[in-house]
Amino acid sequence: MVDFSNALHLVRERAPLVQCITNFVTVNDCANIILAAGGSPSMAHDIREVEDAVSGVRALVCNMGAIEDIDAMVLAGKRANQLGTPVVLDPVAAGGTRLRRESAKRLLEKVRFTAIRGNASEIRSLAGQEASGSGVDAAAADTVSQDSLPAAVQTVAGLARRIGGIIALSGPLDVISDGEQTMVLRNGCPTMARITGSGCMLTSLIGAFCGAMPSDPFAAVCTAMAAMGVCGEAAEARRLKNGTGNATFRTDLIDAVFNLTEKQLTEGVRYEIY
Amino acid sequence: MVDFSNALHLVRERAPLVQCITNFVTVNDCANIILAAGGSPSMAHDIREVEDAVSGVRALVCNMGAIEDIDAMVLAGKRANQLGTPVVLDPVAAGGTRLRRESAKRLLEKVRFTAIRGNASEIRSLAGQEASGSGVDAAAADTVSQDSLPAAVQTVAGLARRIGGIIALSGPLDVISDGEQTMVLRNGCPTMARITGSGCMLTSLIGAFCGAMPSDPFAAVCTAMAAMGVCGEAAEARRLKNGTGNATFRTDLIDAVFNLTEKQLTEGVRYEIY
Amino acid sequence: MVDFSNALHLVRERAPLVQCITNFVTVNDCANIILAAGGSPSMAHDIREVEDAVSGVRALVCNMGAIEDIDAMVLAGKRANQLGTPVVLDPVAAGGTRLRRESAKRLLEKVRFTAIRGNASEIRSLAGQEASGSGVDAAAADTVSQDSLPAAVQTVAGLARRIGGIIALSGPLDVISDGEQTMVLRNGCPTMARITGSGCMLTSLIGAFCGAMPSDPFAAVCTAMAAMGVCGEAAEARRLKNGTGNATFRTDLIDAVFNLTEKQLTEGVRYEIY
Repeated sequence: MVDFSNALHLVRERAPLVQCITNFVTVNDCANIILAAGGSPSMAHDIREVEDAVSGVRALVCNMGAIEDIDAMVLAGKRANQLGTPVVLDPVAAGGTRLRRESAKRLLEKVRFTAIRGNASEIRSLAGQEASGSGVDAAAADTVSQDSLPAAVQTVAGLARRIGGIIALSGPLDVISDGEQTMVLRNGCPTMARITGSGCMLTSLIGAFCGAMPSDPFAAVCTAMAAMGVCGEAAEARRLKNGTGNATFRTDLIDAVFNLTEKQLTEGVRYEIY
Repeated sequence: MVDFSNALHLVRERAPLVQCITNFVTVNDCANIILAAGGSPSMAHDIREVEDAVSGVRALVCNMGAIEDIDAMVLAGKRANQLGTPVVLDPVAAGGTRLRRESAKRLLEKVRFTAIRGNASEIRSLAGQEASGSGVDAAAADTVSQDSLPAAVQTVAGLARRIGGIIALSGPLDVISDGEQTMVLRNGCPTMARITGSGCMLTSLIGAFCGAMPSDPFAAVCTAMAAMGVCGEAAEARRLKNGTGNATFRTDLIDAVFNLTEKQLTEGVRYEIY
Repeated sequence: MVDFSNALHLVRERAPLVQCITNFVTVNDCANIILAAGGSPSMAHDIREVEDAVSGVRALVCNMGAIEDIDAMVLAGKRANQLGTPVVLDPVAAGGTRLRRESAKRLLEKVRFTAIRGNASEIRSLAGQEASGSGVDAAAADTVSQDSLPAAVQTVAGLARRIGGIIALSGPLDVISDGEQTMVLRNGCPTMARITGSGCMLTSLIGAFCGAMPSDPFAAVCTAMAAMGVCGEAAEARRLKNGTGNATFRTDLIDAVFNLTEKQLTEGVRYEIY
């Protein structure tokens, strides 16, 4: 079983240094959410120093939004693999353009990923299924419903076995699998799709949790996803109460991670083992 | 006449996907204000994929703050022109350096723009008049006053006729013209010049509105400008009430776009046909 | 003596245009804090235009987080030196990788810096002492304590004499020296280390103050550091009162600079001449 409470405890206690090679759109939010969780971010991404930089970190996050840094991701990822450091991939808009499809393919060939977090169309694209090209943010068509859950579980678990790591599909329903065990999470809120960077921040959080507990990446990924969902609900409650909008929601979401307690997480998470 | 209410309705209903090739300073705010308006942002800017990316979007925004991406803008802009997709230009600091002047000239030669939004000195620079070099944010000298309004209208309308598109000069007085009809807007507040990105966000909003109603770009541009001004006033009212500063103002401004109602817009806008 | 009040007055009155060649993680915050202080930011960093751009500004800030822009920093810095324009360096993660060490060395050889602001490990690295490689944000080990203060003062003053400029070491205790006079500041709060960009924003503020009063850079640097510390305490008081987190703290910090009064600064600053 996943001990959410312990995972949250560990990320605060161990304050992992997490290196992110990530895109310029949401890089600031990614750094701040890692700090909110208790980790420490490094956004070094220059190909001349990424191998050097990765030697000192507890986890590496590769975010394909930084499409110009794929070479740096490969170099840093291979070094992290040698060192046994967890590597997490965010295949941003993986199916959106030919460049993205080729970049995703190359990353999967060259680097062993501890975990990959994407939305439904990104995960489907990695799994070789038809991909929608409608932007990077979760759209209505781009999610898993109760009806499509069995098929999604199959896709996610199958891809997890293929890459030998964890696949995390995020949306209104999150599906997380290491190929053997699969967890479904039902937290979060629609406003998370009305800010840029929900996905990037979530992947950065996964990096922090994997860095804190590299020996149990499934628990790390599930807890990061659960924390994001529970914090999204907390931020949404504030938005509805205060009549604010998506920009304040973003700030409140990071604040909620900063203030998240073990009790709040374990009481708020809605999950099932599939 | 411009039906502000209908334009706002359409941007929410159609949720246009807007691609921005934009600068790293304000890119996050640009994405979030597009989401606030009801659109969906894509910030793809790599020259290897912009043509591919632009095929799936409803509007393209080229922000010259991304001065290293001018080639990508030309490529994406030409493709958008072929597809009949609206293209909006923000000529950031157009007169500030020789590189900017040459880049603006090249963009105007290679791409047909549906609309161009700049401050007074940027628009004057595009019109071939003397440009001030004092940074990218609206300064006191860099605005249109009641006295200089007739000259500004002439400059704006003349440039609109020359480019065969809409010119929108923003500041305390906004002047918007398609060469035939000209609208003057009197909304907004001085604090908008105390945050970075007011202009970039406004141009992104224009992209969203043009993407939602490509058949009437004049109404789209006027409504985006009106919405920004009305929301600036709403954010300023909050700032004065709560004693906050420019950073909270920025957040409140995006929130105000998120929460803007058709009634609030039509009642708040102060405009005249010149 | 340092007249904090006068320095704050001058930055508002003179509204210096400050050019920052800075990193993509915190660039938006750097621009907004310069605006909050009363200055005007330009983030032009393209090597083809930095010399042109620097001609019109009151100060130049070089932030080594933009490790890909070192050549542009050298070019802009040399031009600023010719013009007598103050140049401020933030040696982000100076000791963290070989590329950073070499880049710092090159910058110090090619450009005369009016001031350099870093955390303890960055300053120690510039001084040729052992550097820790643990990321860019101030960690517990990476600060000056009361016990290590005498050694830190010696390091800071010695490096100041060597570069012929001001060295500002920031942390729970700030140490600022021009080689002759040394000030110790005791403002700030631990939450400043829980957001990304505290250091970058501080260096940008130093740029604004140096641009406003180039004839007394020691007073400019000390006042910028004092202002940041006092505003950090104001933001922390709000955070504790409102139960918010690090993201709201960041916003409140910039707001506090926007609203900082001369009275609040002079009454709040805790300093000693060492």
